[in-house]
Amino acid sequence: MKLLITGGAGFLGARLARTLLARGQLAGQTIDTLVLADQAPAPADLAHDPRVQVLTGPLLAQCDALAGAGLDGVFHLASAVSGECEADFDLGLRANLDSTRALLEALRAFGRVPRLVFSSSIAVYGSDPAHPMPAVVDDDALPVPQTSYGVQKLVCEHLVADYSRKGFIDGRNVRLMTVTVRPGRPNGAASSFFSGIIREPLAGETAICPVDPSVAHPVASPGRTVAGLIRVYEASVAECGGRGAINLPGLNMTVGGMLDALEAVAGPAARARVVFQRDERIASIVDNWVHQAAFARASRLGLTPDASFEDIIRDYIADCRAAGQADTALKGLAG
Amino acid sequence: MKLLITGGAGFLGARLARTLLARGQLAGQTIDTLVLADQAPAPADLAHDPRVQVLTGPLLAQCDALAGAGLDGVFHLASAVSGECEADFDLGLRANLDSTRALLEALRAFGRVPRLVFSSSIAVYGSDPAHPMPAVVDDDALPVPQTSYGVQKLVCEHLVADYSRKGFIDGRNVRLMTVTVRPGRPNGAASSFFSGIIREPLAGETAICPVDPSVAHPVASPGRTVAGLIRVYEASVAECGGRGAINLPGLNMTVGGMLDALEAVAGPAARARVVFQRDERIASIVDNWVHQAAFARASRLGLTPDASFEDIIRDYIADCRAAGQADTALKGLAG
Repeated sequence: MKLLITGGAGFLGARLARTLLARGQLAGQTIDTLVLADQAPAPADLAHDPRVQVLTGPLLAQCDALAGAGLDGVFHLASAVSGECEADFDLGLRANLDSTRALLEALRAFGRVPRLVFSSSIAVYGSDPAHPMPAVVDDDALPVPQTSYGVQKLVCEHLVADYSRKGFIDGRNVRLMTVTVRPGRPNGAASSFFSGIIREPLAGETAICPVDPSVAHPVASPGRTVAGLIRVYEASVAECGGRGAINLPGLNMTVGGMLDALEAVAGPAARARVVFQRDERIASIVDNWVHQAAFARASRLGLTPDASFEDIIRDYIADCRAAGQADTALKGLAG
Repeated sequence: MKLLITGGAGFLGARLARTLLARGQLAGQTIDTLVLADQAPAPADLAHDPRVQVLTGPLLAQCDALAGAGLDGVFHLASAVSGECEADFDLGLRANLDSTRALLEALRAFGRVPRLVFSSSIAVYGSDPAHPMPAVVDDDALPVPQTSYGVQKLVCEHLVADYSRKGFIDGRNVRLMTVTVRPGRPNGAASSFFSGIIREPLAGETAICPVDPSVAHPVASPGRTVAGLIRVYEASVAECGGRGAINLPGLNMTVGGMLDALEAVAGPAARARVVFQRDERIASIVDNWVHQAAFARASRLGLTPDASFEDIIRDYIADCRAAGQADTALKGLAG
């Protein structure tokens, strides 16, 4: 089979690619070709795999080529992130809405009805005067997005569902929890600090936390997130309970609870590297985000959240060691 | 002030235009110019009003010109209808999604932050395996559209809300109930028969009803619908309860109840002209539609549904007489 991952050189896309290449198959079919489309070049280990084809450039410019590629399946992860979309409205519409539409048209044009998993986000949820945020947001909560990113994700969910209903693709929508701990540098996502407050202290650096410790938010490790994407790809639409978006499992945490876990795993010195310095722009975005999530449909697919935030941190530490980055990434880890 | 009605030559748009011209003002401002944009030519009475400017052609082609028009307010009614969008997927995306996007960009480009009322539809509601249709659909029900038309309307609602949140326009979304009795010929809407089963018998003609008499659906007269559009335009966002879409008031009827009303107003001979002949394509669309609607937010704006379906029929009869069309349109009316 021939698979495409959009955003395939990104953190989550590359991790999904490695997982799929290690499995060698998806939904019972051998993976012969894995196309990684991304604006950035693919990591070397992936680019060197003989099954991997790399497409580098904006997704919008690649869709004509993808129309003739004969794809059997797609994980559509490529996206401008929330902070970028708030700062540059046109970028968000182009990178998220227009690119998704072009991708759907490319898949429709080939006529093979490829399976597609669209990575939406819990950023579709929000509140407005008529719709206060529910204490716990389940799969069926009314999405009232209050960011352009959330609006664009929600719009794309509905387009994926309609292209599927029309028989052009076989699409499923999943809403990702905030993924943490992300490696590397902070990105433009308003949620970036959810990784930074763990990653930077572990590296021995100071981290700025732009929101209060009481802020509650559901999170998931990269590993659980990738497992969710694959499970939903392999499930039947009936098992999924239809094409409506499925919340992936999240661990409901507060920022303070995350720091307690950091201290438990890495000691008080690591925790002391987190400095609270309120950023009104980020705090106002995060205020409107989900505080606690429920995920009944994902549970019915056998998916579970991470067991604890300590586990999420330990996973990150193990990943850094496996990647040979302990010297820099874990410089702040006692012992 | 300078106003635009897209779809301004259509049945509802022309009626709205006549109402606005008769009032002479909107939200306390004198209407100096009323632009009617439509694919079809505007009715002569409107085209001859010195305040009216007519733009004839596809909305998508007119948006460049509209960007420089200095509009203070917009009623965006132009739309491909539900049956058309199911039959021609590309038409629906172009006429509904692309045209709305181009209109929003045109309004943003001028920088005047015009007020805009977007006519969405109760076709945004539907059901799927995980989301059975609620017995009564209120403003806050989860939209699970099962037609391309419904998806496109829902997507545009969210774009209108986001362009408003960003301060590019001052938008409000209303969900119209099925409007009946529409004059003229059947159109491509799957809901067209809701007018046909009244209009054709009154004209002395046979009407085909493609669904069972037990089918329940909320409807509204053209007059109440126009009143709702104007009321929401004139209300503050706070009065509206935010930018989220507002259900306009609907009278919850069954097809059988509509025919009882027809008999009460026009006699048994009129009712006998309705022939039940199931059309699976239409019935399957209508099966997924709202059976009963609630409209708490519209009620708080002082809007009320029609008092009875008999009233809706009598309004239509009065309109036909006022338009001098009694000879043909009311040929089947006894007495």
